[in-house]
Amino acid sequence: MSIITLTTDFGHKDYFVGALKGQLYTQYPEVKLVDLSHEVDAFDLAQASYLVGAGYRHFPKGTVHIIGVDAGKTPSKGHIAALWEGHYFIAADNGILGMIFRKKVPETLVEITIHDRLHEQATDMEVFATVAIHLAKGGALSVIGKTISTLNEVTELQPVIDQEQRQLKGYVMYIDHFGNAVTNIEQSLFMESARGRSYEITVKREKLKTIFPHYHAIEALDNKIDHAGKTMAIFNEAGYLEIGIYKSTLHTGNAASLLGLRYRDAIWIEFKS
Amino acid sequence: MSIITLTTDFGHKDYFVGALKGQLYTQYPEVKLVDLSHEVDAFDLAQASYLVGAGYRHFPKGTVHIIGVDAGKTPSKGHIAALWEGHYFIAADNGILGMIFRKKVPETLVEITIHDRLHEQATDMEVFATVAIHLAKGGALSVIGKTISTLNEVTELQPVIDQEQRQLKGYVMYIDHFGNAVTNIEQSLFMESARGRSYEITVKREKLKTIFPHYHAIEALDNKIDHAGKTMAIFNEAGYLEIGIYKSTLHTGNAASLLGLRYRDAIWIEFKS
Amino acid sequence: MSIITLTTDFGHKDYFVGALKGQLYTQYPEVKLVDLSHEVDAFDLAQASYLVGAGYRHFPKGTVHIIGVDAGKTPSKGHIAALWEGHYFIAADNGILGMIFRKKVPETLVEITIHDRLHEQATDMEVFATVAIHLAKGGALSVIGKTISTLNEVTELQPVIDQEQRQLKGYVMYIDHFGNAVTNIEQSLFMESARGRSYEITVKREKLKTIFPHYHAIEALDNKIDHAGKTMAIFNEAGYLEIGIYKSTLHTGNAASLLGLRYRDAIWIEFKS
Repeated sequence: MSIITLTTDFGHKDYFVGALKGQLYTQYPEVKLVDLSHEVDAFDLAQASYLVGAGYRHFPKGTVHIIGVDAGKTPSKGHIAALWEGHYFIAADNGILGMIFRKKVPETLVEITIHDRLHEQATDMEVFATVAIHLAKGGALSVIGKTISTLNEVTELQPVIDQEQRQLKGYVMYIDHFGNAVTNIEQSLFMESARGRSYEITVKREKLKTIFPHYHAIEALDNKIDHAGKTMAIFNEAGYLEIGIYKSTLHTGNAASLLGLRYRDAIWIEFKS
Repeated sequence: MSIITLTTDFGHKDYFVGALKGQLYTQYPEVKLVDLSHEVDAFDLAQASYLVGAGYRHFPKGTVHIIGVDAGKTPSKGHIAALWEGHYFIAADNGILGMIFRKKVPETLVEITIHDRLHEQATDMEVFATVAIHLAKGGALSVIGKTISTLNEVTELQPVIDQEQRQLKGYVMYIDHFGNAVTNIEQSLFMESARGRSYEITVKREKLKTIFPHYHAIEALDNKIDHAGKTMAIFNEAGYLEIGIYKSTLHTGNAASLLGLRYRDAIWIEFKS
Repeated sequence: MSIITLTTDFGHKDYFVGALKGQLYTQYPEVKLVDLSHEVDAFDLAQASYLVGAGYRHFPKGTVHIIGVDAGKTPSKGHIAALWEGHYFIAADNGILGMIFRKKVPETLVEITIHDRLHEQATDMEVFATVAIHLAKGGALSVIGKTISTLNEVTELQPVIDQEQRQLKGYVMYIDHFGNAVTNIEQSLFMESARGRSYEITVKREKLKTIFPHYHAIEALDNKIDHAGKTMAIFNEAGYLEIGIYKSTLHTGNAASLLGLRYRDAIWIEFKS
């Protein structure tokens, strides 16, 4: 089985996603195509890296992940492909792979060099499709590119812990479909920083003292009262601290709308000794 | 052939739907996956039940329908699976299956009991995916759950006919993509109630005296005039009385916007003797 | 391999697209289904024809393209199917195929006549699905319809060049997901009209003197400055003159919002001798 996942900022209105699938099926009729997301905001690398980083692990090793966000080849950024954690990733060298790999070095990293083997007006997506099919069929990275050792990097806000190790500060890096705010604080970083201490999370005007394993875990606390509308912190399925409102709907409002949380807003965790 | 359909409130922006598909393909590469809808409003069981109830019948017997809406397992609601009308349905016991089955008892109904066979942090969707693949491969419900005899029920507005059998009152249960308002009055109930009498439908400020078999049937009345913009009643493809505006577009407005129709609004049918 | 593409104005909220796929898979489990777009504005033939005309060429010959926009069969418009450029197209005879074919006569054109072979309440989409599967399996058009020689036509705005051959006027025919405005000026028409002369494009208050081969080609001009936000003209992948804003995002605004470009707005090209 060969799966190719697609993550783009193309949206669903235009023919672009369909055309990409047509190109892929034309080259390899048996391939399986899965949409990860086509609703990444235009050129938004932070969103795309969160979605791909959270999504790829649900696919079998050997899956090829195409990232069609800011994919234009320019004098300062080429097209690249990598084998990392047993998965293949194809993107422009715009910083996104570094955001996904988070310091873990890829097994193989190449700059794609097949452009002159395609027709002259080949689009970025035709290049990506050709590489993806080559990899999905079991071809080697070395055949379609030349090894490179470094990725272009983008500077992102990183979580910081103060010198006294009493305060951990992180940032909202993604607002999901439900209006939940995903922060850049990983569960592992939190655990290391907390070292078993109790804590208090400050999110805008709210203070939270519990991080749940998932939203409906709040029901286990006391299932006789209605918890809908409560602000909660959880470690989400992707392993990040997330702020949400239990059972938020269009009518009740959600974490983004009610708390006014936006991309890059800070949240603080105070540890008590 | 094995088909699994997916109905969720996950939306298309996040990686959730893609991750679910990755889990399903990992377990069963040959399965076919069809999206029924991922734009159910968050936690909206009425919408989800209408969509699944209208959609399932277009698939072959043996199809498995996953319903990922309000799917959290809590102390008061488990995960359930049913065989009904030759199709399999997987959901949380939140009332949605009763809304789909509408008094027709399922052939088999089980509470899913495989949670302790999965890894400890298995998500609701991992549970549903495992059950769905088991069923899609021809496995029995008894292997993944224990038989139960009753479903959790939610109380919904029901159509009512007055004692003199002269007035039938129903409610809007769904507003579709075109802004058409689907009521909870089934064609069969209407026929029984009307017993051949003529009728007048009151929808907000409009009075309608004809129910068409579909929207463009109005053209057959008189194809020399332009019917665009007329308020119409039809029995829709799912078998419900629906109020719409012929050829409504973004520019003309639609039944929901022009008539001000919303979920749970009442409509009346007077029968003339 | 057999591929069927789907282009509709059904949106993603309702069960309609899923139901169509269920009908197609029921009849032909091995078929591949690709969504071209389901976000065509209701009844918008211009949008649908642009999307299908731009998208079909990325699929292999023999692919079947279903167009579910304004698909109702009425006394004045039947259901038709055509073989054109090696691809099959199924639609209502509402003018859309003429807009796609652009004067190039189809190899075969039939009016679909199978309605009485289906059950009485067969929907337009059941008719289209049955025809599509017949064609995808290699069946002949003559089996499902009778040959016709003309299509219903809709009158569209056409690009015009003035008598002195100094000014070419075109119109916006599509606004894409990124807010780029696609005009109805084809690259071939532009080339013929320009005959090597220099030119100036007037789009609302902007004057443009260069047409790029794609957006990021602007980087090659000078990659030391930031070109984001510049209004550009390109020939897009479908071969049309398109007006966009380089790297436009939700935050910066786009061609449609910043320049106020809408469907049917005029743009002018002055040629200099």
